[in-house]
Amino acid sequence: MAGNTSQPGATVLSRTMQILACFSEEKPRLGLREISALSGLPVSTAHRMLKELRVQGLLDCDDGDKRYSIGTRLWEIGELSDVSLRLRETALPYMLELYEAAGENVHLAVLSGVEALYVARLIGHRSVPTVSRMGGRLPLHTTGVGKVLLAFQPDDFVDVYLGDALARPTAYSVIFAPKLRAEIEQTRRSGFALTSQEMTLGNVSIAVPITDSGDRVFAAISLVLHTARADVRRFVPLLRRAAAGISESLAGHATEWD
Amino acid sequence: MAGNTSQPGATVLSRTMQILACFSEEKPRLGLREISALSGLPVSTAHRMLKELRVQGLLDCDDGDKRYSIGTRLWEIGELSDVSLRLRETALPYMLELYEAAGENVHLAVLSGVEALYVARLIGHRSVPTVSRMGGRLPLHTTGVGKVLLAFQPDDFVDVYLGDALARPTAYSVIFAPKLRAEIEQTRRSGFALTSQEMTLGNVSIAVPITDSGDRVFAAISLVLHTARADVRRFVPLLRRAAAGISESLAGHATEWD
Repeated sequence: MAGNTSQPGATVLSRTMQILACFSEEKPRLGLREISALSGLPVSTAHRMLKELRVQGLLDCDDGDKRYSIGTRLWEIGELSDVSLRLRETALPYMLELYEAAGENVHLAVLSGVEALYVARLIGHRSVPTVSRMGGRLPLHTTGVGKVLLAFQPDDFVDVYLGDALARPTAYSVIFAPKLRAEIEQTRRSGFALTSQEMTLGNVSIAVPITDSGDRVFAAISLVLHTARADVRRFVPLLRRAAAGISESLAGHATEWD
Repeated sequence: MAGNTSQPGATVLSRTMQILACFSEEKPRLGLREISALSGLPVSTAHRMLKELRVQGLLDCDDGDKRYSIGTRLWEIGELSDVSLRLRETALPYMLELYEAAGENVHLAVLSGVEALYVARLIGHRSVPTVSRMGGRLPLHTTGVGKVLLAFQPDDFVDVYLGDALARPTAYSVIFAPKLRAEIEQTRRSGFALTSQEMTLGNVSIAVPITDSGDRVFAAISLVLHTARADVRRFVPLLRRAAAGISESLAGHATEWD
C-alpha cells in the first residue's frame, strides 16, 4: 500500500504495471470495476491510480462510457524503443520491397523471453489472414519466425524450451520434442525454417534469420502464405536478400545497437 | 519528494513521466547523469527511479555502456492503444494498396494537441526521404496531413492556431495567417490539401481527410513525393479511395471507436 514509504516508487510503479497488464488485444477497453477485478486492486485504489494514469497520458478515458484504454502518449513514448525506432524503421523499406516482390504477408519478430514478439507486419487485402499483430506474441515452435529464433539459440535454451509443455494451436503443430529437435538441426544447416499449418490452418510460413554485427541472430523475417503458393525455392532467396539488407543497414549503427 | 505521502502515486508517476520525457528521436539512449540533468531530478533520485523502471520493463539498460532506452515492454503495451491497435492496423492494408498503386511515401496522422502525430508510414527505397516517423510529430501548417487536420477543426481552433507564432522549417513554409486561412478555406471546399516544399525542400504532399461514423475528421492520409511527380489529378482519387476504405472499415467498429 501507499504507506510503504521506504519504497514508494516500487509500490506505485508495480501497481501501475498491474493496471497496464489488464489490457489485451481481446480487451483493449476496460471499465473501473473490470480493472479492479483483473488487477486484484481494491476499487478505491484502482480509481485513484486510474485518475492519475489518465492525467499523465498513460491511459486514455472515453468520457461517454468511462472506459479506459492504453494512452496515445504511452504509445508515442514506446515508439522510441529500440525495436520500433531502430529495428522496425530500418527494416520497413526492405519489408516493403519483399512484399512487392512476393505479394504475401511479411512478418518481422524478435525473441522475447520464450516467445516471438512481432515487431512489424505488412499485410495486404490479397494476403491470407494470420493471427499475428504488431506487438503481439506467438509461440516459437509453431511459427516460422519463432522456429528460426529458437534454432539459433544455444543448446541449453533449446533443451529447456523443449522440456516445457508446448502449446498446440492446431492439429498440425509439432510438439514431439525429437521431431522439433530434428527441425531445429535442419534449420541450423539450411538457414531457413518452415511451418505448415502449425499456427493457422491453411497457412505456410517461410522464415530466415537476421543477424547483428557479431553474427548473433536476434530477429527473423518471414513470408506467410497459403499452402498452395508455398514456393520455397522462389521465396527463400527473396527473404535472404531482405534479411541481408536489414542486417547491413543495422550494422551501420553497430555501436548503437550492440 | 517521496515524503509527500498524501499523494504518493502522483509524485512517483509524475517523476516517471519526467524521466520518460527525457528520451527523444535524437537522444533515444541516455546515461544516468544525462537523465538527471534533463529531468531536473537529483542523481540519487534518478538512480533509484531508473532501477525500478528497468525492473518493470518500462526502460531497458545496456549492461555494457549502462545507457538506458525506452523498454520493449513499454512499446508492447503501447501497441494496445487505439491509434495503433485499431486505427493503424485497420489502415495498413489500405495504405499498402495505395503504396502499390502510387509507388510513393504513404503517411497516416491524427491530430494531437496542435500537432500532427504520425501513426503509420510506408516508405520504400524508391521513395523520397521525409522527416516524419511513426510516433513523431510535425506542425499542422507545414504538412499535408496537418493542413487537412487543421482545416476540418472548428473556426475557433483555427483562429487560436493562426494567432500563435508559427514554425517555418523552410523558406517555402507559409506562416502569413491570411494566406493560410485562404488555403484552409480551399481545403474545406476541395476536400484535399497540398504542401509544396513547406516541410522538406523538394517534396510535395497531397492529403485527404479520414472521417469517423459521425463524419468528424479525426485522421488524414497523404502521399509525399518529389515535386516533379506531383500529379494531383492522378493521386487525389487514389487517396480518396484509401480514406473511404479506412473510414468504412472503422465504421464497422463504430461503437468501439466513438
